[in-house]
Amino acid sequence: MSSILHPDRLFSSHPEERAIARELYAAVATLPIVSPHGHTDPRWFADNAPFANATELLLQPDHYLLRMLYSQGISLDTLGIARSDGSSPDADPAAVWQLFGDHYHLFRGTPTRLWMDHILAEVFAIDARLDSASAADIYVEINRQLATPAFLPRALFERFNIEVLATTESPLDPLAAHQRLAQDPWPGRVITTFRPDPVVDPEYEGFAENIAELARISGVSCDTYAGYLDALRERRAFFKSLGATATDHGHPSAHTADLSPAECARLYHGALAGTLEAHEAEQFRGQLLLEMALMSLDDGLVMQLHPGVYRNHNPQLFARYGRDKGADIPLPGEFVRNLKPLLDRVGNNPDFTLILFTLDETTYARELAPLAGHYPALKLGPAWWFHDSPEGMLRYRHQMTETAGIYNTVGFNDDTRAFLSIPARHDVARRIDCRFLAQLVAEHRLAMDEARTLAHDLAYRLAKTAYKL
Amino acid sequence: MSSILHPDRLFSSHPEERAIARELYAAVATLPIVSPHGHTDPRWFADNAPFANATELLLQPDHYLLRMLYSQGISLDTLGIARSDGSSPDADPAAVWQLFGDHYHLFRGTPTRLWMDHILAEVFAIDARLDSASAADIYVEINRQLATPAFLPRALFERFNIEVLATTESPLDPLAAHQRLAQDPWPGRVITTFRPDPVVDPEYEGFAENIAELARISGVSCDTYAGYLDALRERRAFFKSLGATATDHGHPSAHTADLSPAECARLYHGALAGTLEAHEAEQFRGQLLLEMALMSLDDGLVMQLHPGVYRNHNPQLFARYGRDKGADIPLPGEFVRNLKPLLDRVGNNPDFTLILFTLDETTYARELAPLAGHYPALKLGPAWWFHDSPEGMLRYRHQMTETAGIYNTVGFNDDTRAFLSIPARHDVARRIDCRFLAQLVAEHRLAMDEARTLAHDLAYRLAKTAYKL
Amino acid sequence: MSSILHPDRLFSSHPEERAIARELYAAVATLPIVSPHGHTDPRWFADNAPFANATELLLQPDHYLLRMLYSQGISLDTLGIARSDGSSPDADPAAVWQLFGDHYHLFRGTPTRLWMDHILAEVFAIDARLDSASAADIYVEINRQLATPAFLPRALFERFNIEVLATTESPLDPLAAHQRLAQDPWPGRVITTFRPDPVVDPEYEGFAENIAELARISGVSCDTYAGYLDALRERRAFFKSLGATATDHGHPSAHTADLSPAECARLYHGALAGTLEAHEAEQFRGQLLLEMALMSLDDGLVMQLHPGVYRNHNPQLFARYGRDKGADIPLPGEFVRNLKPLLDRVGNNPDFTLILFTLDETTYARELAPLAGHYPALKLGPAWWFHDSPEGMLRYRHQMTETAGIYNTVGFNDDTRAFLSIPARHDVARRIDCRFLAQLVAEHRLAMDEARTLAHDLAYRLAKTAYKL
Repeated sequence: MSSILHPDRLFSSHPEERAIARELYAAVATLPIVSPHGHTDPRWFADNAPFANATELLLQPDHYLLRMLYSQGISLDTLGIARSDGSSPDADPAAVWQLFGDHYHLFRGTPTRLWMDHILAEVFAIDARLDSASAADIYVEINRQLATPAFLPRALFERFNIEVLATTESPLDPLAAHQRLAQDPWPGRVITTFRPDPVVDPEYEGFAENIAELARISGVSCDTYAGYLDALRERRAFFKSLGATATDHGHPSAHTADLSPAECARLYHGALAGTLEAHEAEQFRGQLLLEMALMSLDDGLVMQLHPGVYRNHNPQLFARYGRDKGADIPLPGEFVRNLKPLLDRVGNNPDFTLILFTLDETTYARELAPLAGHYPALKLGPAWWFHDSPEGMLRYRHQMTETAGIYNTVGFNDDTRAFLSIPARHDVARRIDCRFLAQLVAEHRLAMDEARTLAHDLAYRLAKTAYKL
Repeated sequence: MSSILHPDRLFSSHPEERAIARELYAAVATLPIVSPHGHTDPRWFADNAPFANATELLLQPDHYLLRMLYSQGISLDTLGIARSDGSSPDADPAAVWQLFGDHYHLFRGTPTRLWMDHILAEVFAIDARLDSASAADIYVEINRQLATPAFLPRALFERFNIEVLATTESPLDPLAAHQRLAQDPWPGRVITTFRPDPVVDPEYEGFAENIAELARISGVSCDTYAGYLDALRERRAFFKSLGATATDHGHPSAHTADLSPAECARLYHGALAGTLEAHEAEQFRGQLLLEMALMSLDDGLVMQLHPGVYRNHNPQLFARYGRDKGADIPLPGEFVRNLKPLLDRVGNNPDFTLILFTLDETTYARELAPLAGHYPALKLGPAWWFHDSPEGMLRYRHQMTETAGIYNTVGFNDDTRAFLSIPARHDVARRIDCRFLAQLVAEHRLAMDEARTLAHDLAYRLAKTAYKL
Repeated sequence: MSSILHPDRLFSSHPEERAIARELYAAVATLPIVSPHGHTDPRWFADNAPFANATELLLQPDHYLLRMLYSQGISLDTLGIARSDGSSPDADPAAVWQLFGDHYHLFRGTPTRLWMDHILAEVFAIDARLDSASAADIYVEINRQLATPAFLPRALFERFNIEVLATTESPLDPLAAHQRLAQDPWPGRVITTFRPDPVVDPEYEGFAENIAELARISGVSCDTYAGYLDALRERRAFFKSLGATATDHGHPSAHTADLSPAECARLYHGALAGTLEAHEAEQFRGQLLLEMALMSLDDGLVMQLHPGVYRNHNPQLFARYGRDKGADIPLPGEFVRNLKPLLDRVGNNPDFTLILFTLDETTYARELAPLAGHYPALKLGPAWWFHDSPEGMLRYRHQMTETAGIYNTVGFNDDTRAFLSIPARHDVARRIDCRFLAQLVAEHRLAMDEARTLAHDLAYRLAKTAYKL
């Protein structure tokens, strides 16, 4: 047993609640992992090649780690992060890991700490706290294990008891890894998700080129708006043929629109010509959300919307190192007016599902719970990104449940690039959900048999049902 | 003793706090109910006719129930909800109740569940959880009891120990039921509240016709703005003569205005002609809030403002079934600038009271507590609507108290159409307030004798004082 | 031992957490006070004259007290508050104190109550609750003690174990008291802070006169924008020579700008001429925040920003009694776009520090923690003003820590004019921080040795380091 991971961690420390939480958790702790939304690389599972080393696997791709270290004055060069120009700083991975160990105290009180401790203790069976003194030994030990067959991607996938894992790809992605997986006898279920941002957002880098590529890869001419929609339909069908059950949309806002065919055509050609004003680009994105919803009515793909992020807020960092280095900042959200055009068309349809996420917690009780507690088409995604944390999840449950109930939520998403953290993240979610339910039981707001059912629903069933898995 | 309702429900499960909460609650549990704001039908008490059946009484009028069931794909037709065109779907009330029982699990963790459990256990002494198996028997048992004299409206009013119950009516309402009650020897105190939205909001359905009716019913010509104000004054006096101590205002925002007489006249005639732009309608409503405040200075009626709801967000549902079917969604609130014109005129007057409500919890600590903790005229209404719930009330107390104290709040409002839920709602509020106070005592932030006084104030005295009852 | 102040106050009442909190608190309870930001009067320490009486010392200057009493209908005249015209109402200080005692129940559940109880019990060793019955005796006893040498400002400073106390002054202040302190053998460290609002905000009363005075006092011509900046540089150097390690900026918003030299000059001359539109004044203030940041790069002064207050919301009160009488109301905050021009210039510089405060708690988890958890230059000031309270601090920790960690925060600021409340305020902060850490330990999210380090950091080290003290 790990001395780092206490078996009661994240439960309330108060005996009545803790006892209930323990009982609820015991029944869900080892349920298979359903991961309906995330960003792992399908090539890991298609190739099944060994991971390189602790630094490349656990530190350098993790924007949660990079941002905190950077905020305390540690440069990305020192951390060995590759630059946009293709050059790489000369950083010894072992030295980078040592630097991480030297600064691990920065993560006290953060979910990163919980996840990393879980990875060290549970995945690598390392029973020591990461710090300056232990870093070097831990680095060697992790690398030793990574070189063994038990740490190949497929072996870990199986050990993690993953029932299904969704990755996320652009419509321009040929899905080569997914095609190889489809033809591979390995039984692990790794599916794709249709994420069309590069071809529906006129402000995305290279939009016109992306549309040209969309026409090429789909074999459908995109000379007209109607053709463009047909090309998107074709790609959705292709994604669906490789397991996709969902689409995902990362927009600056939740704005939707329901425009005339003439206006759609005008905006489309303006987007291709690069002549749209900002508000026109917003309208186009909003129209495309509606188009995606209408296509979902036909092909049954579940729709996800992740709005409200100021991407690449730090231009110096972006210029030097590119995206996803920890410089994305949340924005205030608005759903009541933004979603109305879409809801007016498809909100009353119980056969359509739109799963909403937000980084603006003020919308939980004010907008999202009331909307999802009314519209048959709406469901609430779990606490997202910065709020995928113990306190964040508790705020989510406390602010959503009384108006939306549990059954308008969809269980947990790990939403991660960090494959080894998947069990840790699901474990945190299961513990926190059991803790939340334990409080309701201890305060006689819910009966124990109901809590047991809900714990199972939250850990397993709701995600499977909502995402049609 | 009910096996469903635990005597310690909603208290903290931690022994020290629970013991204190029990003691505080014991002293307030059976205090008379003061209900200064709500939406029950005064004809129930004037006519004292028996209620029809469980479905018509408890389910079909309750938008909290309708919205959740609808959100999970259950149509309002299936629930037997009458349509706006006057037709009614062919739905057997017993079958509708069975459907409710089949889906009662949807309400786990919601206040609806607490209220309904309380109604079943306390009002009907039914010691079984509502579910698919029990629904039919419960339906029969409720109906059996409803047919007995002990379940006539007046008998229930007395059994519920209601000291005073305020209903809410339009100035165009002749208050026939209230007039009959005034002449009835039955001692139950049922009073009206003046809610002038239909005659002060230019965007209200039939505004010009409403003003014509206002002139007719008041006997005061509304040809001029001054006459219109006189007609409103006359109706306020009439409402006051039938017990009203308060007005209530349901506006899209808290916007107030202090316009010149010429501008008031211009807007008034534009409102009658139906020619106002949206921002002009907003100005007119804002001016009327000020006029109402000025009239309150004369007639002493306490003023309530319930702003910030997007009414009838779902146009398909609204077209088919009309208002109040669970499709109202909160909007962000703003009070600091919106209330300023009114506060500049009457905010420093301690003889005037404006009670503020919000559905935007972000305004609790940021705007409302600072405003009410300064202006003599302002008081804080309790957690409203979606926030009339255990967690909602706790957030309210935790976010309001440190800046506004307890004595700038006004106790509890049940604000309900659901007569049988009134004891349940007051019981939840009393328990949560005692729980909140128990925490302060257990953490040595407040002495026990002070907590006892505050528990009584919150359960009974503050509402009576603030509403001049 | 006081019967009013319980040794476990503000800790969780649950035994496991309380035991941990006690242990953590015991190690930090008596650490020296580092007060890097506040509003005490340096003349107190330069002159070391006795304080007058309880009413003048503890009640009349405290806007927290005035606002609550005023909100309940007690006029400022009755409280003896001097008017702007120089006249003073005829109010006996003893009678005013009695009135305070009569209404002390209004503060139940507020931090004011905690601070005042602490002052009475700890500073004056009065073991009685303030109320109508005790007020007169308490008044006499406080005054008796204030007349003794042990209650002179310097004696209290030493008794309070204050290591350093920062006051706040305008660039137009000659800092006479600070100069006298610098030449005084008394070892108490009282330093100034550079707060340039009167000379960087075109909407400040008497802006043009203030600039004339800036030129005079600095000896630098302010005829040009460049000269104006030089004059500011000169004053910063003068403040630094008297101990300042920081600047402070109280702006209506966090708006920053990075304008062309021509535009700066145009706005500057418009500001002097009084011809700027509101949005131009905002631009000028925003530009000056950038100029201040750039000067900090040169002189090393830490920069603080306190944005988002609607000052003097009550015009009647302001006209009669002036500023700081409890009529300032928070406004919604925005940092992601507002700070961008400044961050684009200096946000990546780890040698520059900008400490951010907010009165809009919605920005904690949504904007401030993500920004400070990324930019090397940003740090998070503690829960401010209305949120300097037990629940406010807990919300701050729960909403900030998971994204920003602890090491992007800067410990506690008391930010007070109320000298005698300084130990009380630091004690509340230390207790609440220990309570927060105790929860993390009890729930196995943090090890005890780490919590001990963090408790010390939060009580002492972080403030000292962040403010370069």
